[in-house]
Amino acid sequence: MKAKIQGNYVVLGPEAVVAFYQSGYIGRPKDGALYLRFVEAAYLLYRNKIEVFKDKRQLDFDSFLKFAALSEDFFELKYIVYKDLKERGYYIQSAATDFRVYPRGGSPGKTPAKCFVYVQSERIDLPFSALIQNLNNAQNVHKEFILAVVDEESDITFFEIKRPDAKNSFYGKMSYSVPDFKSDESIESSPPLFPSLPVQAVLQKARVVISDGVASKILYQKAFFGKMLDEERLQLSLVEALYLLKQNVIEISDLESKMMSEDGFIQHAILIEPDFMKKYVIYHDLKERNYVPKTGFKFGTHFRVYQKVESLDKIPHSEFLLHVISSDHPFKMPMTSGAIRLANSVHKRMIYAADTGRKIEYIEFERIKM
Amino acid sequence: MKAKIQGNYVVLGPEAVVAFYQSGYIGRPKDGALYLRFVEAAYLLYRNKIEVFKDKRQLDFDSFLKFAALSEDFFELKYIVYKDLKERGYYIQSAATDFRVYPRGGSPGKTPAKCFVYVQSERIDLPFSALIQNLNNAQNVHKEFILAVVDEESDITFFEIKRPDAKNSFYGKMSYSVPDFKSDESIESSPPLFPSLPVQAVLQKARVVISDGVASKILYQKAFFGKMLDEERLQLSLVEALYLLKQNVIEISDLESKMMSEDGFIQHAILIEPDFMKKYVIYHDLKERNYVPKTGFKFGTHFRVYQKVESLDKIPHSEFLLHVISSDHPFKMPMTSGAIRLANSVHKRMIYAADTGRKIEYIEFERIKM
Repeated sequence: MKAKIQGNYVVLGPEAVVAFYQSGYIGRPKDGALYLRFVEAAYLLYRNKIEVFKDKRQLDFDSFLKFAALSEDFFELKYIVYKDLKERGYYIQSAATDFRVYPRGGSPGKTPAKCFVYVQSERIDLPFSALIQNLNNAQNVHKEFILAVVDEESDITFFEIKRPDAKNSFYGKMSYSVPDFKSDESIESSPPLFPSLPVQAVLQKARVVISDGVASKILYQKAFFGKMLDEERLQLSLVEALYLLKQNVIEISDLESKMMSEDGFIQHAILIEPDFMKKYVIYHDLKERNYVPKTGFKFGTHFRVYQKVESLDKIPHSEFLLHVISSDHPFKMPMTSGAIRLANSVHKRMIYAADTGRKIEYIEFERIKM
Repeated sequence: MKAKIQGNYVVLGPEAVVAFYQSGYIGRPKDGALYLRFVEAAYLLYRNKIEVFKDKRQLDFDSFLKFAALSEDFFELKYIVYKDLKERGYYIQSAATDFRVYPRGGSPGKTPAKCFVYVQSERIDLPFSALIQNLNNAQNVHKEFILAVVDEESDITFFEIKRPDAKNSFYGKMSYSVPDFKSDESIESSPPLFPSLPVQAVLQKARVVISDGVASKILYQKAFFGKMLDEERLQLSLVEALYLLKQNVIEISDLESKMMSEDGFIQHAILIEPDFMKKYVIYHDLKERNYVPKTGFKFGTHFRVYQKVESLDKIPHSEFLLHVISSDHPFKMPMTSGAIRLANSVHKRMIYAADTGRKIEYIEFERIKM
C-alpha cells in the first residue's frame, strides 16, 4: 500500500483504515484517510506492509528512518520502544508525547487504555517537575504512568512510577512514634525503673549519645531508635535526636557540657549535613505515618523504612528504601536505574520524597516487565 | 590500674606492659611504661581494666570519651571500629592514621600484620588521590588496605580496596578485539559472503547503525559488539563506534549522508556525552586487555564487562561492573556503598577506573566481613 509523507504524518487511503486500523488500531482515521505517525509508519514499512513516498520519491526503510530522525526529536528511541511493545502484542495509540497502551485482550473503543508510556533517553536528565506533571496527567485519567528508558545499546527498561499514598494508604503499623517511658518487665531491671524525662544526651559531632541504660533500652527495644553502642549507651542519628528533642524526651548538651537549644542543635546539624533539614522534614512525616525510618547508608539512600518493629529478636526486613530529593531535582537515569535495581535485589521498594512547599510528594519507581 | 593522660597518650606503669601488652598487644611499651592511644585507653576503661586520671581528677568512661572526642578528630568513629575489631578477637596496633590488624592466630612479633584499616565517616568525601596514597602505603609493605566506613547509626561496613591488575593479571579471554571478517558457515549465508570493509554506518544522535546484515551478524555474533535492532541492523554505542572507526572497520556518515571524520565524530560524541573521551580511554584499554565492555546503564555504571563471549546462545554473566572517574574524583561513601552492594547482589565485582595521565588506575572495592 502506498503512503505519502504529509507534514508530520504519513497518510494512506481508506483501504489502509481497514487493513491497519480496524484490526490493528494503528494510526488514526480522518476524513476517510489513515494518518500514521512516523513511528507507526516506520513499523509498517519494516513489516513490508506499506511503501512510503516523499513527494514522488520512494524512501526505503533506512532512508525513512533517517528522514524521521531528522524531523522528530528522539525518533529513534520512540521507534525502539514502539516496535518492542508491538512485538509484545499490545495495541498502541501514538500521541504527541507518549504512547497509549491497551491491556492485553483490550483495545481502543472496547476497553480504556491501561497506561501512558513515555520514552526517555538514559542520557537526558528527567526533572522532578516534568515527572510529576506526566504522573498527574496519567493519574487524572486513571492510567498507569510508565517510563520506558532506552539505554546506549538500545535496551529498554520499563518503570512504573506511582504515588504510594495515592489511596491515602501510605502508613506504617507502629502504634506510637515515641515509646511510653513507663518501664516494665520486658526491660531487665528490678525493681522497675522510671527514667526521668527529659533524658540527658551528649552531641558528639555527628551522633548523639544517651548513657542512661534504662532510657537507652526503652528507646531502642520499644521503638527502635538508634543503635546500642554497648549494654548501656545508645547512639542516635541527628534526625532521630532532633525528633526526640522536639518531643522533650531528651535534652542535648555538647562535649563541653553546655546545654544546646533546638536552634543551636539544628545549626550544628546543618554544618555536618547540609541537607539535614530536608531529611528531617521527611523523617518527621514518616514518623507521623507510623513508620520506623532508619539510615539507608548501606544502600546509598537516606533511609530504609520499616512498617513496624515489634521485637528486637525478629527485626523484619525494611519495607522500602527512601531518598530525599529537592523539588527541582533532575533524575539521572543511570543512577536511578541502579538505585531501583539495588532495592529490588534486596526485595525492597524504592521511593523518592520531596517537599514541594505545598505538600510532601512520595514517588515510587518500580521496574516492571511489559 | 591507674593511668595518666599525657599529651596525646594515656600512660601506665610497667605492670601494664605485662597485663596489656605482653598478652594482648595493646599499646606500645617505651622506657618501661605503657603508652596507650585514646581508643585503646577508652576500650580498657570500658572493660573496667584501668582508671584514667587527668592531672589529679579521675574521669569516668563518659567523661573520657568527651575529652578524647574534643582532642582527636573522628575519635568516636575510631573507637567504634577499634571496639568492633577487638570484640572480633583481633590483635590491633593503633598507628597515627590507621589500625594495623593481625591475622587470626597471628600477633605482633610472631606474624606480620595482615591489613591496614582506615576509618572513614560516611558523610566525608574520600578523594581518589587520598585513596590511592593509602592503597600504595599498604601495598608497598604487602598489606591489605581495608576501609572501615562508619554510618550515621554507627554500623561499620568494611571494604577491601585493591588493584585487580596488581599481579599483571587483569586480562580478559577474548582472542581478538575485532572479529576476522571472513564470513564462515556459522553466519547464515550461502554462499559465504565477505562484507567489504570498511562497513558503512550511520550516526543517529547517540547511536550508530549498521544496515549491512552480514557485517552486523559478524560483529555481533563473533565479538558481541552492539545490539541487533532487527535481523539485519546492528546498533553500536558511541564508544564502540569510535573503536571500530579507528580500526577502519566502519565508516560513519551522518543523517544527511555526509561522511564524518574521526575528529568530527568525536566532537559530536562529546556534545552528546560530556565524559565521552574519559569513557573511551577506558573502553580502549579494556579492549586491549581482551575484555568485552558493554553498557552498564542498568546498574548505574558506565560498563559491565565480560571476560569472554563465545556464543550468543550462552552469554555468560558479566564479570564486573566498571565506572570511570576523574583522577580528582571524591568518593561519596553512601553512593559508593550502594554501588558495591548492587554489584554484589548480581554477583559481580565493582571496579573504578581513572586515567591519571601517567597510567590508568583500576581500583576494586570489595565488601568484606572482618
